Amino acid sequence: MNEFALIEHFFADPAAHEPTPPWLRLGIGDDAALLVEESGWETVITCDTLVEGRHFLAGTDPEALGWKALAVNLSDLAAMGAVPTGFLLALTLPEADEAWLTAFARGLFACARRHGARLIGGDTTRGPRALTITALGRVPAGEAILRSGVREGDDVWVSGRPGRAALGLAVRFGELSPNLPGAGEWLAALDRPEPRLALGRRLRRLAHAMLDVSDGLLGDLRHLLERSAPPLLTAEIEVARLPLAPLIAGGAPPERARTALLAGGDDYELLFTAAPESRDRIILLGKELDLPLSRIGRIVSTEQPPIVLIEPDGRRTLPEVLGYDHFRP
Amino acid sequence: MNEFALIEHFFADPAAHEPTPPWLRLGIGDDAALLVEESGWETVITCDTLVEGRHFLAGTDPEALGWKALAVNLSDLAAMGAVPTGFLLALTLPEADEAWLTAFARGLFACARRHGARLIGGDTTRGPRALTITALGRVPAGEAILRSGVREGDDVWVSGRPGRAALGLAVRFGELSPNLPGAGEWLAALDRPEPRLALGRRLRRLAHAMLDVSDGLLGDLRHLLERSAPPLLTAEIEVARLPLAPLIAGGAPPERARTALLAGGDDYELLFTAAPESRDRIILLGKELDLPLSRIGRIVSTEQPPIVLIEPDGRRTLPEVLGYDHFRP
Repeated sequence: MNEFALIEHFFADPAAHEPTPPWLRLGIGDDAALLVEESGWETVITCDTLVEGRHFLAGTDPEALGWKALAVNLSDLAAMGAVPTGFLLALTLPEADEAWLTAFARGLFACARRHGARLIGGDTTRGPRALTITALGRVPAGEAILRSGVREGDDVWVSGRPGRAALGLAVRFGELSPNLPGAGEWLAALDRPEPRLALGRRLRRLAHAMLDVSDGLLGDLRHLLERSAPPLLTAEIEVARLPLAPLIAGGAPPERARTALLAGGDDYELLFTAAPESRDRIILLGKELDLPLSRIGRIVSTEQPPIVLIEPDGRRTLPEVLGYDHFRP
Repeated sequence: MNEFALIEHFFADPAAHEPTPPWLRLGIGDDAALLVEESGWETVITCDTLVEGRHFLAGTDPEALGWKALAVNLSDLAAMGAVPTGFLLALTLPEADEAWLTAFARGLFACARRHGARLIGGDTTRGPRALTITALGRVPAGEAILRSGVREGDDVWVSGRPGRAALGLAVRFGELSPNLPGAGEWLAALDRPEPRLALGRRLRRLAHAMLDVSDGLLGDLRHLLERSAPPLLTAEIEVARLPLAPLIAGGAPPERARTALLAGGDDYELLFTAAPESRDRIILLGKELDLPLSRIGRIVSTEQPPIVLIEPDGRRTLPEVLGYDHFRP
C-alpha cells in the first residue's frame, strides 16, 4: 500500500460524513486546511512530539498511544481555557503495519470524538516511530488563561490526582506490584490521560494563571512562576494539603507517593492560581464536574526561592526534584 | 544545557523585539500560542515532516536544512494563495549539538525573515533526528486556490525550472559531475528552494486550481486531477512546451533532464490551471515577478487516462514514472 492510500485508508476522518462545523472550511486533502476566522475569537495552537523509546516504549499498545498523543495536546488547549477544533497528525513509521495503524487510529479517533476535535491534515513519512500532533482550539478574545497571570496572594490549585501516571509507570516497569489496589487506575492514568477541557473552559475569568502538569507538579509550578512579572513570587506548598491519601490508599509507599505527586510527569492535570475570594466558586465547580480540586498552597512575595514546601510538622523545606527534562540522558 | 535552556537559547525568535504583528496575540512560552481572528479571513494551516535518512542525509548542512524545512511548508501556503503568519517547530535531535543548532537556527530564521513568518511555538525532544514544521497563513475568505478547481479547457502552467532539485541530487550522489555548468544552480534549488509565495498570492481569482510540486510534476498533476469533480478530466502535456532547454543547457543529458522535470520531486514550484483567457495576464505576472511561467498543456474531458504526454513528433504516450512515494522502500 503506498503512502497516499495509507493515509486515506487509516486516517479517513470518521467524522467526515457529519455536518461540517462552522469553523472548518476545508479539511484533509489539499495543500493545507482552511479555518474560518471570526472577530472576537482567538485561535489557540500547540504541538507536541512523542518519540518511541523516549516518550513511549517500543511495543506500547498503539490504541493507547493514539489516544494519548492527542490527549496531551488537547491538555495544552485545556490549560489555556480553549475549546478544541481541529488537529494535524505528522506520523513517522518504520513500516506501514496495518494492525498497528488500525489500533492507533482507533485510539486517536476515540479521543478526538470524545473531545470534539477534528482531523484536518497531516503528513505520513517513513522513519523511526514518532508522531507530532498540532492541535487547534478557540477561546473568546482576551479570555485565554496565561502562565503569566500569577498574582501575590493567589491560592495554588491542582486538579485530579497527580502522581498516578508516575505510579503507573512504576507498575509497568515492575517496581510496584500490579496487584496493588490502585494499580489499574494508575495504569489508566498513564495510558489514557483525560485532558481537563471542561475544567479549563470553566476557569476562564476565574483562574489568574494556569498550565497543565506534564513534567511534574513542582517543575511546572516553577515554569508558572518564571513567567510572572516582577516582583519575584514564591509558591508555598502545604504538604498536608496535597492529595496524597488516595495514592497511599491505592498501595503506594508514602515516600514514593510523595515523589510521584510532586515530581512525576505525564498526569496532564491542571495547575492554576486564583484569588482566595474565588474559593467557593472553585469548590462548587469541582463538584459540578465531579473532579477533585485541591487547594495546595499560596503565592507570596518574598526573597525566598521560587518554591517552598511546608511540611505537615511546620518545617519549611526546599524541594529537590523539579521535573523531567527530555534532554537529560 | 537542559531542554528549556536549549529552546530559549537557539529558538529565541530574532524578530521578538520587533513590533508584534496584528495577528499575533501570544507567541512562544505558554501552553499554546494565540492568534487573533478577524472576520473575512481564513487561517491556512499545513505541516510537513523531514526525517534524517529519508528526506535529508545524515551530515546535511544544518543551515540548508533549517531553510528547507520551513520553505517546504511555506510552499504549501503559497499553493493556497496564502500569506504566511507564524510557524511551530517540533525538533527531535539525538543530542544538543551547539554547532548544529546554531547553523540550523540561522537557516531557519533566514527563511522566516525573508518570507515574513514568525516562530510562535514548538517542542524539542530527544530521539532520531527529524523535524515537523506546522506553518500558518491567511487568505481572504473564499479566495484560497484549491486543488479541486480544475476545469475542462483550462491551460496547465508550471512555475520556474522544475527538475533542478532532482539534478542537484544526482550531482550530490556523484551521478552527474559537479563541474557541469548547471550544477551550482541545481544544488541551490535542492538545498534552498524558494517558496513561490508572491506568485501564489497574485494568482488568487486567476488560477482555478493549484498545488506545489513536491513529489514530481506528473505525480502531483495526477493528485490535482484526482481532486476534480466528475466528469473525469485528462491533462494533455505537450513535451515541446516543457522548460527542458535550460536543464540541457546546464549540461544535463536530455533523457535525464526529462525524467528530472517530469518525475523529480523537491522543486516546490507551483503547478496550476487557468482559463485560456487569462494567458496574457499570467505572462505579464511572470514578467513582473521575474519568474518563468510555462504553459505546458491543457485539460480535456475524455475517456483517456489522467495524463497523456504529447511528444514533439505528435505521438501520444502515457507516462510511467509518476512520483515519489515516501513509503516505498
